[in-house]
Amino acid sequence: MTTFTERLLQVQQNQRSLLCIGLDTDPLLLPPHLASSQNAVFEFNRAIIEATHDLVCCYKINLAFYEALEDGGWNVLQKTLEYIPKDVLTIGDGKRGDIGNTSARYADALFNQFGFDAATVNPYMGFDSVEPFLSNPERGVFILALTSNSGSKDFQHLKIGKRPLYERVVSAAKKWNTNNNIGLVVGATQPKQMKRIRAIVPRMPLLIPGIGAQGGDLPSAVQYGCTKEGHGAVINVSRSVIYASRSSDYASAARQEALRLRDKIRTIQEEFFKV
Amino acid sequence: MTTFTERLLQVQQNQRSLLCIGLDTDPLLLPPHLASSQNAVFEFNRAIIEATHDLVCCYKINLAFYEALEDGGWNVLQKTLEYIPKDVLTIGDGKRGDIGNTSARYADALFNQFGFDAATVNPYMGFDSVEPFLSNPERGVFILALTSNSGSKDFQHLKIGKRPLYERVVSAAKKWNTNNNIGLVVGATQPKQMKRIRAIVPRMPLLIPGIGAQGGDLPSAVQYGCTKEGHGAVINVSRSVIYASRSSDYASAARQEALRLRDKIRTIQEEFFKV
Repeated sequence: MTTFTERLLQVQQNQRSLLCIGLDTDPLLLPPHLASSQNAVFEFNRAIIEATHDLVCCYKINLAFYEALEDGGWNVLQKTLEYIPKDVLTIGDGKRGDIGNTSARYADALFNQFGFDAATVNPYMGFDSVEPFLSNPERGVFILALTSNSGSKDFQHLKIGKRPLYERVVSAAKKWNTNNNIGLVVGATQPKQMKRIRAIVPRMPLLIPGIGAQGGDLPSAVQYGCTKEGHGAVINVSRSVIYASRSSDYASAARQEALRLRDKIRTIQEEFFKV
Repeated sequence: MTTFTERLLQVQQNQRSLLCIGLDTDPLLLPPHLASSQNAVFEFNRAIIEATHDLVCCYKINLAFYEALEDGGWNVLQKTLEYIPKDVLTIGDGKRGDIGNTSARYADALFNQFGFDAATVNPYMGFDSVEPFLSNPERGVFILALTSNSGSKDFQHLKIGKRPLYERVVSAAKKWNTNNNIGLVVGATQPKQMKRIRAIVPRMPLLIPGIGAQGGDLPSAVQYGCTKEGHGAVINVSRSVIYASRSSDYASAARQEALRLRDKIRTIQEEFFKV
């Protein structure tokens, strides 16, 4: 059996890309020639996937954007997932987490009903809230450690003794990783902290949001986000790729921006690692 | 305008009940004479609501159990919500939380698409992840403070200086409560801590899971969960009510168990408060 972490590293090498595109598709931000219907959301996703799938290692699907659609939202999500080629991984980004019997339901929905390769999980409720997501080594879990938003300072940076809370989460994730299928969410907006986290978990995948609209730093995301072999960082970009153009050339504009980012990431990879 | 907290206290007095029934409806646990189809989940919910709505202040709907249904899950949820009488409040229990623009989507889905009166939110990502849920004072947010599960010890109890993390969450929630629509989730399994939390937020509603299947203590949940006027504790019970019987008498068995709990809660209320 190939564990999630092994699968991810393999895909990153096959695709020669660390880029992940976030399909945070907002019906109100679609190009005007697509009606803001639900089918338009799928049409938009289909065109973006068609234009970019050879440039990415993963697509990250932000579940909130689908739940907010009228009741066909789940249907749009399912059709989008079916459209993603099998040589690219999918991340269901819902930041779930609840008591054990409930987390088991979320894991079932994400991994079995929808078939995501990985999910994001919130650690606040502790081990039994994360455990149901871990049982299948082939499916991955990205645990929120240090997020890219301003609110990350409210609790994540609080000191437990001499170490911030997010480092306690990182250490716990390391301990829980007996199936080699755990990764961490670490925002690109906090590069110094990312460097410290990478030192604690030298081999764990990091899902890195915050590049693009949120202003995170790409070179340090690649330098500190990768393992010493130069992979394992999943660099997520959403809005700046999928809304690169708001007119009928949106798919080719998304491809151009994705290509630019993939190549920029590769250049940085080559600078710091033997890849 | 009536704020969520005022609405809740009013409903608890009108209904003379602090009981909340959790509709964690599992298709595999339905009485055998209901097929385990999706419509069966709605039929089950309908019968439970019909048999218990005069005995409760709220229904809490655990979103995981609906997401794990096949693609009609949202439809079952919508029909269930439409069936709940307007004199009882609904809590969408999804423990959501993400960066601001994404949390805004979750809030829109829960409050506008589904029409829940309140939602549960995970505080790990800080203020901007909670803020979008707070903007309408009539809709409420229960922020996870101290949960009922064993994993609550992993992070929630860690000490920041002399105070545990969950108390920092409580203090933050107090500060954020400018619209009088914030409550806290505090598990019945940790009564001493609940007493301390009640002292920090004397007037904030507490949503209290952990009674029943999880073994929490009902007398202290009522005593410490209520404000000094004897309301404001929302005592949630799921499995021990909805699965009180597994045969064709499940609805009347659920009513009996709900009646027993409501009356037991009332007796404790009368012992400790002038209600």
